[in-house]
Amino acid sequence: MLKTIALISDFGNTDHYVGTMKGVMLSICPEICFVDICHEIAPQDVSHAAFVLKESYPFFPIGTIFLIVVDPGVGSRRKRLIISCEDYTFVLPDNGIIGPVFSRLNRPKVYEITEEEHFLTPASRTFHGRDIFAPVTGRLACGFSPEKFGRRTERFNIHPFPKPVFDRESLNLSGVIVHIDHFGNIVSNISSEDLNVFKDSIDIALGNRSISRIIPSYSDGRPGELVALISSGGFLEIAVAGSSAKELLGVKTGDKIIVRSEKT
Amino acid sequence: MLKTIALISDFGNTDHYVGTMKGVMLSICPEICFVDICHEIAPQDVSHAAFVLKESYPFFPIGTIFLIVVDPGVGSRRKRLIISCEDYTFVLPDNGIIGPVFSRLNRPKVYEITEEEHFLTPASRTFHGRDIFAPVTGRLACGFSPEKFGRRTERFNIHPFPKPVFDRESLNLSGVIVHIDHFGNIVSNISSEDLNVFKDSIDIALGNRSISRIIPSYSDGRPGELVALISSGGFLEIAVAGSSAKELLGVKTGDKIIVRSEKT
Amino acid sequence: MLKTIALISDFGNTDHYVGTMKGVMLSICPEICFVDICHEIAPQDVSHAAFVLKESYPFFPIGTIFLIVVDPGVGSRRKRLIISCEDYTFVLPDNGIIGPVFSRLNRPKVYEITEEEHFLTPASRTFHGRDIFAPVTGRLACGFSPEKFGRRTERFNIHPFPKPVFDRESLNLSGVIVHIDHFGNIVSNISSEDLNVFKDSIDIALGNRSISRIIPSYSDGRPGELVALISSGGFLEIAVAGSSAKELLGVKTGDKIIVRSEKT
Repeated sequence: MLKTIALISDFGNTDHYVGTMKGVMLSICPEICFVDICHEIAPQDVSHAAFVLKESYPFFPIGTIFLIVVDPGVGSRRKRLIISCEDYTFVLPDNGIIGPVFSRLNRPKVYEITEEEHFLTPASRTFHGRDIFAPVTGRLACGFSPEKFGRRTERFNIHPFPKPVFDRESLNLSGVIVHIDHFGNIVSNISSEDLNVFKDSIDIALGNRSISRIIPSYSDGRPGELVALISSGGFLEIAVAGSSAKELLGVKTGDKIIVRSEKT
Repeated sequence: MLKTIALISDFGNTDHYVGTMKGVMLSICPEICFVDICHEIAPQDVSHAAFVLKESYPFFPIGTIFLIVVDPGVGSRRKRLIISCEDYTFVLPDNGIIGPVFSRLNRPKVYEITEEEHFLTPASRTFHGRDIFAPVTGRLACGFSPEKFGRRTERFNIHPFPKPVFDRESLNLSGVIVHIDHFGNIVSNISSEDLNVFKDSIDIALGNRSISRIIPSYSDGRPGELVALISSGGFLEIAVAGSSAKELLGVKTGDKIIVRSEKT
Repeated sequence: MLKTIALISDFGNTDHYVGTMKGVMLSICPEICFVDICHEIAPQDVSHAAFVLKESYPFFPIGTIFLIVVDPGVGSRRKRLIISCEDYTFVLPDNGIIGPVFSRLNRPKVYEITEEEHFLTPASRTFHGRDIFAPVTGRLACGFSPEKFGRRTERFNIHPFPKPVFDRESLNLSGVIVHIDHFGNIVSNISSEDLNVFKDSIDIALGNRSISRIIPSYSDGRPGELVALISSGGFLEIAVAGSSAKELLGVKTGDKIIVRSEKT
């Protein structure tokens, strides 16, 4: 049976880097189904990669290995990790991308990759994706257990996923834009559960605009209408029916979104 | 043997959407060979998707399942379809993309997807690609027959593929640009058969330019020459040898192309 | 076992061209693992394709077939080649892309593809990737030997990979930029061995800037520092730690890089 290896990187689609890593993995394990989740992570943008991983990983088959190479510290002393749980295995530099995912994993164990006999030789100091992470992932796909590559560690980085803040005085819930997608839809860090704090109808402020209606789907908006809805990942999303909310509002990742009760 | 699933969408390559759909399908059927035909369909551009499907599908192996998610009506009451014929199966929202292809299919049967037990639960109202179309496609790849997902229907949409018009008075054949490719080559809706109406040599008008020569291949033009030829799909194409006709002419999809006998 | 077919082209990711070629290959050989090395070769840029092939091919498994369709002469009388050696097979138009690779191959044999019975019929004159190269590659993947497609030839093109020049008078080593990657890292044609001519510390001139420090990895630079290092392919590379050297310097492929002894 094919082994699924799912890939996230900031390598883009204009260089040979991703293809070369796949060549290394296939040289070790010839029976792989590669799935490219996203290679257009903004260069070295750990938050973006963490968001993409969080949104996508639960939909993959049990046994999937995720190889995530967004690696601002390549060549430095930052650790290289295998994070293994009952369902999945993650191979990545220790830059915190596992943050939003780690607490949901089933009995996770974290290993530091140190055994150099599994690396390509000589391993470059500029392309660990090819020389370290790909051969380790290929061997994991072949059935090697994570202990083969190094010892367990309890010390690793968790990138903080920003949480919305509820101010009990103003009764404002303040969140931020964590992602803007290909369609210009704006995804916040405010979950549908977070919105339960409001009993009445709400008002959403973003840029210099205000939205008072949460609709079930894009097609419930009038063409061109600025609307709010719950994203496919379960978070408050701002969209324009049939068009781009990003273009209309001119906002960017990190900008504030404030939700308040309409009555106040 | 691997099952081929060929994908067309407007999801782009910068989000996790396509990868997540593949994860869902692999969770159901682990032996798939995915082929990404195109994910850069202009957002919600049904005509573009219909063109891409028409040009590519006949080259795929018998048994291929085409999953086509360009879905301006996601979450609305638009139908969800399985179109099955002796050679291929198509899974798509009922937005007419099958239009240019349907009449060529071998004994096609159309089914409306209604059986919710095959959907992810809870199915979102914003990402039917992941929650409805992907699990249905995965089950079809596993050998489920289309009747499992709903009843046959005779009512579905056919997106009109624009036909060129021959004016018997002026003897002009009027077509439109249906696609401009990555190289800037301009493809019209005028087929090589349509040109048979002209006995003599012809003149092709596009923008404020005129072309009188149809050459067999790009390399038969002088470098930089504006030329006409028959596209790999069998339609009149305007190109610049070694360069981009789109840039030279500044035209866009939908613009007119007029062919007339050179003598008039 | 799956057969690996690795692809390089200038077809981009916005058209159906690559997907259609894969459909043709799967129609002939259903057990393929496709690896897309790069489809964003600049249109008809043979040098770019030669660089990408050179950097990536040695990392692929023995037995890989490389299908490389960058084909400015499509439809002309340029030859179509199969280059086969003990480890790999390359299928490509005769435009010299094999240049930087050929001399490293293990007992290479070059065949001219002439046997039209293996082409799609009718073969177009505008898309040989689909009509000639893909069906030939599919048959090679099925185990056909290269002789089936035509005779051996000793006459084929070798694209010259530019070599750096050492001036014994000025003691300058002059190279050029051969590639700028997705991160804005600038790769030259000066190999780490070429630098052995310098006994003392060196000075690297590029644009109107000068760099005197070769560091082992990006992370050894201060954020924003312009640095030199050895690329993952073994060549002198100019980078900015955590940012884009291309943007800082405003240089382009083909621009000069001059290395000299710091003492002079």
